[in-house]
Amino acid sequence: MTENHEPRYTENVQEHLQQVLHLLEKHAQVETVSHQQELPRADHHEMVGAVLHKRHLAELREKLSGMHPADIAYILEALPIEQRLLVWDMVKAERDGEILIEVSDAVRESLIATMSREELREAAEQLDTDEIADLAPDLPQAVMRDVFKSLSIEEREQLRAAMSYPEDSVGALMDFNMIHVREDITLEVVSRYLRRFDELPDHTDQVFVVDRDDRFKGVLPINLIVVNEPEKVVGSLMLADTITLRPDDKADHAAQAFERYDLVSAPVVDEDGKLVGRVTVNVVLDFIRTESESDVLNLAGLREEEDIFASVWKSAQNRWTWLALNLCTAFFASRVIGSFEGTIEKYVALATLMPIVAGIAGNSANQTTTIAIRSLALGQITQGNARRLLLKELAIGGFNGLLWGGIAGLFAYFLYHSLALGVVMTGAMLLNLLVGALVGMAIPLVMQKMGRDPAIGSSVMITAITDSGGFFIFLGLATIFLIN
Amino acid sequence: MTENHEPRYTENVQEHLQQVLHLLEKHAQVETVSHQQELPRADHHEMVGAVLHKRHLAELREKLSGMHPADIAYILEALPIEQRLLVWDMVKAERDGEILIEVSDAVRESLIATMSREELREAAEQLDTDEIADLAPDLPQAVMRDVFKSLSIEEREQLRAAMSYPEDSVGALMDFNMIHVREDITLEVVSRYLRRFDELPDHTDQVFVVDRDDRFKGVLPINLIVVNEPEKVVGSLMLADTITLRPDDKADHAAQAFERYDLVSAPVVDEDGKLVGRVTVNVVLDFIRTESESDVLNLAGLREEEDIFASVWKSAQNRWTWLALNLCTAFFASRVIGSFEGTIEKYVALATLMPIVAGIAGNSANQTTTIAIRSLALGQITQGNARRLLLKELAIGGFNGLLWGGIAGLFAYFLYHSLALGVVMTGAMLLNLLVGALVGMAIPLVMQKMGRDPAIGSSVMITAITDSGGFFIFLGLATIFLIN
Repeated sequence: MTENHEPRYTENVQEHLQQVLHLLEKHAQVETVSHQQELPRADHHEMVGAVLHKRHLAELREKLSGMHPADIAYILEALPIEQRLLVWDMVKAERDGEILIEVSDAVRESLIATMSREELREAAEQLDTDEIADLAPDLPQAVMRDVFKSLSIEEREQLRAAMSYPEDSVGALMDFNMIHVREDITLEVVSRYLRRFDELPDHTDQVFVVDRDDRFKGVLPINLIVVNEPEKVVGSLMLADTITLRPDDKADHAAQAFERYDLVSAPVVDEDGKLVGRVTVNVVLDFIRTESESDVLNLAGLREEEDIFASVWKSAQNRWTWLALNLCTAFFASRVIGSFEGTIEKYVALATLMPIVAGIAGNSANQTTTIAIRSLALGQITQGNARRLLLKELAIGGFNGLLWGGIAGLFAYFLYHSLALGVVMTGAMLLNLLVGALVGMAIPLVMQKMGRDPAIGSSVMITAITDSGGFFIFLGLATIFLIN
Repeated sequence: MTENHEPRYTENVQEHLQQVLHLLEKHAQVETVSHQQELPRADHHEMVGAVLHKRHLAELREKLSGMHPADIAYILEALPIEQRLLVWDMVKAERDGEILIEVSDAVRESLIATMSREELREAAEQLDTDEIADLAPDLPQAVMRDVFKSLSIEEREQLRAAMSYPEDSVGALMDFNMIHVREDITLEVVSRYLRRFDELPDHTDQVFVVDRDDRFKGVLPINLIVVNEPEKVVGSLMLADTITLRPDDKADHAAQAFERYDLVSAPVVDEDGKLVGRVTVNVVLDFIRTESESDVLNLAGLREEEDIFASVWKSAQNRWTWLALNLCTAFFASRVIGSFEGTIEKYVALATLMPIVAGIAGNSANQTTTIAIRSLALGQITQGNARRLLLKELAIGGFNGLLWGGIAGLFAYFLYHSLALGVVMTGAMLLNLLVGALVGMAIPLVMQKMGRDPAIGSSVMITAITDSGGFFIFLGLATIFLIN
């Protein structure tokens, strides 16, 4: 239902943003002027102000009405909260739904917070059932009840199905805008059937062939309808050997299939072989983008995507968990150093050198983990080769330990003129890089085995170990070999 | 030309991998047996061995011939080098080209290294010109010359065009498999024209409308051909207001357009308005995946994607630049500490606490940078709001500095029973988090301004500053307030 109007494409959405900002600025200037002039004598000025005010807003409204919903979503995300809400008010109510679907979670929250129950219900009702399901977690329960009542029985069924699958499953990516035909009809009949649509659903690169019980039989690419003679029968042309997804498959599994096989759409079939929906490439594209962004955010310890214009308080909260966790591991590392205070007192140079031992091993271990996580995600690490890969990482760690540890040892030797200190430095770096290789490989593997996502939290643990481990190894070796 | 055979899809490529591994293992066992038995008396055994040997290889060959090229590519990537080359030998020569296109750069290199000039030429000749251009950087010059000679004039032109665009431009994503029609013909004529193809090029969701000078006029979605009456004229149905890309646009720009507008294909038009090619969503999907992977690899300081079965030597090299860079910044930080040796000597507790000050600010600054880089990539940071966003990050830094610095101060106070130490700790954390917020925001902005990719290298610089800065601030404050 999102295709009520012809979408207007733009080559350069940032130009749109600049124009909107410009109009908003002019609008703000007029407002300031009319406020400043609120003296009785200034009636004339005020009137001019009010007219200008109206003109700029009308211009803005006009501009927005010509824009694609995805572009409006982009602009809303790029605006500070006051201006964002002003623009949101300018958008025609009948476009609210399609725009809410496009904006990021954080921005959606800020928009929904300003809408009445009635407005939300109307917005949701403009959407397809799979889109309502995407919006559902952000909508008040009362609104969802209203929306549910307004749906047909079939749509209620679809909404219930779409909402029943976990966020990272194929079911959550699925839509219901598919066309199905029987295998015993001719292309002629299919064409006549298709002509009854004003427009085919987006991303209809194939129609699905089902039997009378809705059981999936195969797909018929639209292109085959186009290149074949009308009297051919569907069954003789359809492709039965095609990829089918299951609603409870991992979404990631579907994404990999789309990438490997260059799909535009794929049927979703339940365990009884019934066709229940389809997944389209645009949804997969969004999924991949979101996943990869959340990987990068997770690596930096951000809980979720931030609305850059959210309040300081809100943003700070998004960063707490990670900082708190790191503070704990830093406290622990600090206590490890603390237990060698006697050694450091006798040999202060150790305090200057110890961060090097900890830091480089942490970097090296994170390289190992990144490779391990990536290979796990691709399923390249098997029972058979895990040991081999671990040995390889240990070899790289040992090699790098000798190389960079050697350089660090020379650095220590030339600074403090102690051969023993240089050797301890090199030895500690070597050992800590080996520790790093071991945990960098082992932690993701163990997390995967425990059914957890190795991409989340591995790096905190690994840095904690290479930090505390580095201090312990370096100061421990120093206590043994330098202090006596 | 990649569609010589019907691709076989698989739900579970890892199962394929397991089966291949199993066959390879059996094959290896037989080999071992026949080697062990190389005594004259063991002729019979050896013969049995040879037969088994042949049977397993035949089975493997059979298995591979039924597999989709993308799945074979997946398996090649997941195999150690000896087994990989054995499997590569088993693959029919006429499929070499399409598989080389699918494998990762690192694995492609390992495969190409074993192929003769003749084999490479044949592999390349199976491909479309845009695919040959993708392969070109990995092929020896002599092979490229041979390939070039074998092409038609039009194809040479295409290959030259495809190779002339930088890797991150639309031109590099473009292919030439498009269908164009004139605007004055009827759908009937278009359909008759399309029926002359056995099969339309992949991802043909629309045909392109051009005038007699090949100037782009609009697009005609296949779906509109299907739902409209045959006597309608192309010009009356085509969409003129559609997105067009330019060959020298940034590839990222095209990817964003595909995401925003849910495209399957888009025309590429040169500055004279001539249609030169098209970009399809499968290429965009690969581009987005590769980009996001290289982001994650860059963050961990890996120069490029690694073949997990590459030699230790090769892998170690991939990790050097980063480790060397970090060693330099660690040396610098070490010298900062070194300049406070006198202070540490008098107050060893400082040595135990200083990593906390450096570490937490580093984490916080990297959160800021991640948000800044993301917003820059989306074009959300403008001249107008950069200052505002910087102030916000400083506020978050200040807030977090007081909160976590306060906790760290209490930690220091309770451990060492010195109020002054606690205050210095809190003050140093606060200041260093502010420094982190400042550089975390400023460095990506400056890099962007200088025309460099802010995602590369920002985090090394920032960690260097928060480390050295943290040591300097903490030990400096301690020298002023604790030692006298």
